[in-house]
Amino acid sequence: MSVADITLLMSAADIKYFVGVGRWEPDARGRLEKAALELYVERGFENTTVAEIAERAGLTERTFFRHFADKREVLFSGTPALEKLLVERVAGVHETAAPLDVVGSALEAAGAMIQERGAWSQKRQAVINANPELRERELIKLASLGSALAEALRTRGVKEPAASLAAEAGIGAFKVAFERWVLQPTKQNFPRLIRESIGELRALAAED
Amino acid sequence: MSVADITLLMSAADIKYFVGVGRWEPDARGRLEKAALELYVERGFENTTVAEIAERAGLTERTFFRHFADKREVLFSGTPALEKLLVERVAGVHETAAPLDVVGSALEAAGAMIQERGAWSQKRQAVINANPELRERELIKLASLGSALAEALRTRGVKEPAASLAAEAGIGAFKVAFERWVLQPTKQNFPRLIRESIGELRALAAED
Repeated sequence: MSVADITLLMSAADIKYFVGVGRWEPDARGRLEKAALELYVERGFENTTVAEIAERAGLTERTFFRHFADKREVLFSGTPALEKLLVERVAGVHETAAPLDVVGSALEAAGAMIQERGAWSQKRQAVINANPELRERELIKLASLGSALAEALRTRGVKEPAASLAAEAGIGAFKVAFERWVLQPTKQNFPRLIRESIGELRALAAED
Repeated sequence: MSVADITLLMSAADIKYFVGVGRWEPDARGRLEKAALELYVERGFENTTVAEIAERAGLTERTFFRHFADKREVLFSGTPALEKLLVERVAGVHETAAPLDVVGSALEAAGAMIQERGAWSQKRQAVINANPELRERELIKLASLGSALAEALRTRGVKEPAASLAAEAGIGAFKVAFERWVLQPTKQNFPRLIRESIGELRALAAED
């Protein structure tokens, strides 16, 4: 009997158990994220424990804590990758570009990354909106992305307060675009909404 | 012997005790705010208890909780008044004014209110900056002021997404101005810094 045969004879529950106790944990991170979000939607964030998330994912609590500091961080694990992308994009835009264009271009790239996980983003946002503590965490993550953007602009030679203002205005436009996109994430193009949002901000700023 | 004579014969400590146990608690709110901020600066926010704040103010814990939900709220008790002022100002600006001018005018009025408590604001900000939980709370209060501004603009007939964009951009400019002002609150004019900040945002948005 080959390994493939053994696998065929095992029930789904057996395989889950086998995976749970073994060291072979393919995409443990992704499975924990999926299990956590399912549970947060089903029971609410407050009523879900790390033990339950690990169990649903067929993994141990120990594995959970190898990937995430706490159950809140599961929802914000994408922030470092977004920040890295923003900073790289700001550095990569042509040196003659205006600060707000640089910010817009970087935020569109971030939007494209978020768009890839549209269904996840929508569920995640519903969980966050239902919990004041998570909304606070979301705001601080957005503020940290804004600070990273401002720092990246200064590295390009943009002076203060222009660097901070362009970053803050860009993050504001991004928030407004996100709120529109997340209502129908599979039907709308997030990067385009960001571009439109920055365009509308420019139009507003020209009005007097 | 008149009441005035009795008061003259009492030591400061007696008066404090008398005030503490009595029902006569002039400016209990202000005294609790002052005592709390002193203690947060001296010992750190985390190491200060409500009992200690009440004691320093010569009041009871019961009185503290009549004025504030928790020790965090002492630092954010001004938010409702700021929100009220912003909303009134947005409603009061001439109807032909551009959305970003309306927002700027309201934020300058808020800046003038904050400026009146310059020394308090500076100490308060040092306490907030030292504590991640307080920084999160500050961000959510700022976001709620932004939502109130957007709502007030919609009441004036400003459409979406212009209302939210003008509010977000205004709050961003306000943040940048605040960070500059709070370094030397008695030497700088906060409303003027807000006006400059919005002007710089306009210049940035015009660049391409």
